[in-house]
Amino acid sequence: MAIEIPRAVRWHDGAVRIIDQTLLPSEYREIDLLQVEDVVEAIRNLRVRGAPAIGIAAALGLAASLKPGLGLPPAEFRTRVLEYAQRIRETRPTAANLAWALKRLLAIAESREGASNEELWDALYREATAILEEDREMCRRIGEHGLELLHDGATVLTHCNTGALATGGIGTALAPIYLAAERGWRVHVLATETRPLLQGSRLTAWELRRAGLDVTVLTDNAAAAAMNRLGVDLVLVGADRIAANGDVANKIGTYGLAIVAHHHAIPFFVAAPSSSFDFELASGDEIPIEERGADEVRRGFGRQTAPDSVPVYNAAFDVTPAHLVDAVITEKGIFKPHELSRLRG
Amino acid sequence: MAIEIPRAVRWHDGAVRIIDQTLLPSEYREIDLLQVEDVVEAIRNLRVRGAPAIGIAAALGLAASLKPGLGLPPAEFRTRVLEYAQRIRETRPTAANLAWALKRLLAIAESREGASNEELWDALYREATAILEEDREMCRRIGEHGLELLHDGATVLTHCNTGALATGGIGTALAPIYLAAERGWRVHVLATETRPLLQGSRLTAWELRRAGLDVTVLTDNAAAAAMNRLGVDLVLVGADRIAANGDVANKIGTYGLAIVAHHHAIPFFVAAPSSSFDFELASGDEIPIEERGADEVRRGFGRQTAPDSVPVYNAAFDVTPAHLVDAVITEKGIFKPHELSRLRG
Repeated sequence: MAIEIPRAVRWHDGAVRIIDQTLLPSEYREIDLLQVEDVVEAIRNLRVRGAPAIGIAAALGLAASLKPGLGLPPAEFRTRVLEYAQRIRETRPTAANLAWALKRLLAIAESREGASNEELWDALYREATAILEEDREMCRRIGEHGLELLHDGATVLTHCNTGALATGGIGTALAPIYLAAERGWRVHVLATETRPLLQGSRLTAWELRRAGLDVTVLTDNAAAAAMNRLGVDLVLVGADRIAANGDVANKIGTYGLAIVAHHHAIPFFVAAPSSSFDFELASGDEIPIEERGADEVRRGFGRQTAPDSVPVYNAAFDVTPAHLVDAVITEKGIFKPHELSRLRG
Repeated sequence: MAIEIPRAVRWHDGAVRIIDQTLLPSEYREIDLLQVEDVVEAIRNLRVRGAPAIGIAAALGLAASLKPGLGLPPAEFRTRVLEYAQRIRETRPTAANLAWALKRLLAIAESREGASNEELWDALYREATAILEEDREMCRRIGEHGLELLHDGATVLTHCNTGALATGGIGTALAPIYLAAERGWRVHVLATETRPLLQGSRLTAWELRRAGLDVTVLTDNAAAAAMNRLGVDLVLVGADRIAANGDVANKIGTYGLAIVAHHHAIPFFVAAPSSSFDFELASGDEIPIEERGADEVRRGFGRQTAPDSVPVYNAAFDVTPAHLVDAVITEKGIFKPHELSRLRG
């Protein structure tokens, strides 16, 4: 069964075509990024988000924005490559994939000293496209490995958005679900809305619904009741960073879900590319946790929902200890937390 | 130390004076309900909410709205008593305290057959005032008993709003916290925002802040991380209904909090008047769970936060099994779940 999966970011006729995610779920609009200002604005204002998708948008965006300058003297063109890469990188300083993707393009530029503008641009464009294609492939492999944890009729609870909208392909934690649907399996997805930014209700519900899948939204605090009353076969979430011992940093709320899943004897799986592993961190205690602004919680919907003066604990991530994780699904296979060291190097 | 605790509902100069809770936390406005239409509108539109506060508003509201009719022929006045009580009762058909309070007033009316309008009105007004005073006393006693579970410097996590805004007095689960503050103890309150209707961030944060207490808001999904990272000494929540075996029905999210508290070995306490006990229900399995409309979750902030077509699991309550409850604080003392049968009859 062919299903329609949205493409968060792709190359289209000399531009980067993205879905403007700030308008979802109310409006579906694709926009084309042609100039460096467009690329910077779109990444900064979260029109494209999700670590892999941001990296791809940055790489394709650098190529698109350089194209009008092909007639410049070669030295000026090279200066522009560096300048535009710098401007794009500064949009979201903590996004690892953003810096990583641009670094790959700059390495190409360095290796092509003396090349003509056209040759250099072509090499950059091919590298950017390679980043997109590798990501699509990674998503599919995670999906194929994860498929063995699902079955026809399964109910899966997920958190945040780890789907097509976050990647260049079919997502990470949502990839097995899309492949199950392609096989004709009925999978019911429970999507937590994921306060404060509501990626679950705004984005996951939208993309699964658009692909014709069966999805139900619930508030984050209803997950335990849903496990008890609706029946949940497994929990499947993504990861932002995984330490050497298997501790998982992911969107705030993941840790609580792992505890309530454990309490109900429901298996808890993490899906993430092997690039998310950081073997330099012995455990999750070493993962720095970003705290974000209070107004995301106090007035996050264009309306005041808490007094302005009240302090807010707004950690963007939490850490789930390895002992609450049944297995991690990567593009290289499924690993128990204590087996992850096999991925080292 | 005297602290300023808001009064959700009281008698003022021939009218029911309430705080319009739909405007909080942006605006503090007291409104006076004089006519039966005012009372009906205020209860229906949640300007006054919280089971005890609704019961009090209904009783005082009946008295206030009857006063202009004192000059009617006695038979007409008696008919009006029944008619107004009926109109007020129909505003929120499932609110137990609403029906209970009006039943008390109608019993007074029945027992005063042949009384003059003035005598009857006076008896109704006195009964309504008694309901308010009994509730204030109940809150204070819960506070006094609960105080022994707190200490100077304690960090308490709470859920929803169980404070002055929900009662005629100083609340149920928040009552011990107010009394601790009166003693000069520093208590830090962590208030979960409580999706979907945000009673925690809109109301609990507002009333504690206004009383000068130390309160931090967090999204519901951050509770587990807060227990792990910030340190929480105890969890203190209210209850809508408690079964004979000690199972507790309360605002959605309570069950998940009980599980994560248990995981962190943090004591979990429920504060509720003994009128919340329903010994006719053997266990929580018999408590009916109200499911509310999907748009509370899909567009609860005046903005669309999930696709219109997506189904929502929006249970208003969940059930926490007795084995996750360390004790229940009532106006009659503190009881372990297995000791609750002492409160019977």
